[in-house]
Amino acid sequence: MALVVQKYGGTSVGSIDRIKNVARRIIKTYDAGNDLVVIVSAMSGETNRLVALANEICDIPDGREYDVVVSTGEQVTTGLLSICLKSMGYKAKSYQGWQIPLSTDSSYTKARIESIGDQNIRADLKEGTIVIVSGFQGIDSGNNITTLGRGGSDTSAVAVAAALNADVCEIYTDVDGVYTTDPNICREARKMDKISYDEMLELASLGAKVLQIRSVEFAKKYNVDVHVRSSLNENTGTMVTREDIEMEGILVSGIAYDKNEAKIAVMGVPDKPGIAAKILTPLSDANISVDMIVQNVSRTDMTDFTFTVTKADLKQALLITNEVARDIQAKEVISDENISKVSIVGLGMRSHAGVATKMFSSLASNGINIQMISTSEIKISVVIEEKYTELAVRLLHETFGLAS
Amino acid sequence: MALVVQKYGGTSVGSIDRIKNVARRIIKTYDAGNDLVVIVSAMSGETNRLVALANEICDIPDGREYDVVVSTGEQVTTGLLSICLKSMGYKAKSYQGWQIPLSTDSSYTKARIESIGDQNIRADLKEGTIVIVSGFQGIDSGNNITTLGRGGSDTSAVAVAAALNADVCEIYTDVDGVYTTDPNICREARKMDKISYDEMLELASLGAKVLQIRSVEFAKKYNVDVHVRSSLNENTGTMVTREDIEMEGILVSGIAYDKNEAKIAVMGVPDKPGIAAKILTPLSDANISVDMIVQNVSRTDMTDFTFTVTKADLKQALLITNEVARDIQAKEVISDENISKVSIVGLGMRSHAGVATKMFSSLASNGINIQMISTSEIKISVVIEEKYTELAVRLLHETFGLAS
Repeated sequence: MALVVQKYGGTSVGSIDRIKNVARRIIKTYDAGNDLVVIVSAMSGETNRLVALANEICDIPDGREYDVVVSTGEQVTTGLLSICLKSMGYKAKSYQGWQIPLSTDSSYTKARIESIGDQNIRADLKEGTIVIVSGFQGIDSGNNITTLGRGGSDTSAVAVAAALNADVCEIYTDVDGVYTTDPNICREARKMDKISYDEMLELASLGAKVLQIRSVEFAKKYNVDVHVRSSLNENTGTMVTREDIEMEGILVSGIAYDKNEAKIAVMGVPDKPGIAAKILTPLSDANISVDMIVQNVSRTDMTDFTFTVTKADLKQALLITNEVARDIQAKEVISDENISKVSIVGLGMRSHAGVATKMFSSLASNGINIQMISTSEIKISVVIEEKYTELAVRLLHETFGLAS
Repeated sequence: MALVVQKYGGTSVGSIDRIKNVARRIIKTYDAGNDLVVIVSAMSGETNRLVALANEICDIPDGREYDVVVSTGEQVTTGLLSICLKSMGYKAKSYQGWQIPLSTDSSYTKARIESIGDQNIRADLKEGTIVIVSGFQGIDSGNNITTLGRGGSDTSAVAVAAALNADVCEIYTDVDGVYTTDPNICREARKMDKISYDEMLELASLGAKVLQIRSVEFAKKYNVDVHVRSSLNENTGTMVTREDIEMEGILVSGIAYDKNEAKIAVMGVPDKPGIAAKILTPLSDANISVDMIVQNVSRTDMTDFTFTVTKADLKQALLITNEVARDIQAKEVISDENISKVSIVGLGMRSHAGVATKMFSSLASNGINIQMISTSEIKISVVIEEKYTELAVRLLHETFGLAS
């Protein structure tokens, strides 16, 4: 007998029929003798509907009240799934964030989990009750409803699994697991059996979108095995878990891409200390996230400073950067939306030289020019012209033998 | 400066535009220097949508979980209205039942209020915050969400007004107040300026439908002045309040009708003690409410026993009654859906004789046959053939001079 935590996303509970399917799946696990805690998202489309209502009133709704509105989507799903399980003859009970309690800080719309009380849930499990928990939501120290940000149900699931010391946390989604790259682009993309937390973090932040990034941080911190799998079949998915020796041997485990970035270059900046801070501080003050940053080695007393932001932030970022450029007497500011970022991720890079060279040669020999490069311990990202994205992904997938 | 409790129903908050209108109305009261607590219902249609989801799973959804689902409608409205007020520059804060707390018993779907904590709300009012409260919902001693039954937001409003010792409780609805009878039937129907709790109770239970009956019981118990008025204009509505001498002078204050009942008669019952209990107990065991009950004086050793149930319950009630009729050796059971109940209500009846005679003569002289009669201290109800309903209402309205 194990303690299993399962999480079902919005698509899996998107209609009453699908909720019934989820109930049957839950019962199968329960009847096999497991204790079961199930975290659910809002029915697909519901959160968007609620957000649209709030935004119909004003562009930036009050955070506390926004959370009051959007957290109802998950509440409805917990009730419906519990009704379903009870009508099938099983003991079930819904939990909202405040009933657990799942305590967070007071950063409305993107609260961080501080602690989870396990007493109430444990008492129900002891009585054979299937516990159904609203994902995404918590309660702060002032008894206010909070939410964890989009995709927060993944984080709820991993956090609850950690608090209960569960044997496994299964995240059900509409894909079979984590792939070596996007199967829509590369037919050879292969489902991975397992992947380390760190690799998953790099892939998630790079746009793999299977798991919310904070849920993986949580899983890593508390050593929770996360099984990402499909709610549409019985296939084994991908286990996101701690590193092992086998993983170390793999040079590159996945290829990610992101078409959502734009490039801003500040050209001909007088090369003095503090230039980077001067350019980046006003952007962060305006809440604009900067991703890649490259400062070219200056040949004379001038330097070029290049960075990327999301396409959505480009307009505002340009306004701010142009102002700074005048202050620091830069020659000009140019921008380019027509780019994409392609990244290779793998634990093996740590101990193997030549991975970068192999990546760059592969791209060069196919006429793909690299505009920016950024590297971390287990990741190499390049910025290229957007139209080459798919070609680059397929090339690199083959170059690093991911299909085999 | 007064402490005002306002309640807005589903139609008044049925769209974002309407919520904005409500916000402007609230601000007007607030800017006039009043403390303000506002109770809101779910947006019109929302509760029905949620109920339909639950019923799509099964006919009789688990009560606890049903309440978890349907209580979200009010929660959404509180959040949206608070967002709206804040975007207009006012301090506002939403409260769910558990945050007040509004404590109830554990009768899910029809919980009764046990107590209301006023500390949290008072602290907010002290800081000049407009408090927005979810109607309809509460929390039981086990930390479970409960709901008060359809129309429960009226009861929430009156109960909160009582707990805070508010100066007035304003119930905003889509009519101008309480009328002497249904204006759709009788053009001479007139809005009453005030009406006593007891009269309102009789009118509400007889189908006036302006206020949930339990809210009036609450208002009576705690002596809360309830001002029923329209959210579409600034007109003074009807004050539901304690009796005064002026009211005593009015013979009949209102005329109600109900087309939703059906009649069952058990004919030729051997007249022994306990017959009524034998017939009615199995009905109440089946959760069927019986309204009017008449047992005819027996001329021989036989008696006829007649009662009314709602049309929705007729089929099941007949099955049960037929069974009992066999047991007690009654001659036959007959039923009639083709009836309606017309009632006159007035405090003055207590001290004035002849009201009943006047009613019966008025009906008789217009060829309307009375099938059943039932009276209370301040009410006389008759059952007549359904097709005469409108005629009877108009006749009695004129007979008792209600138009003047």
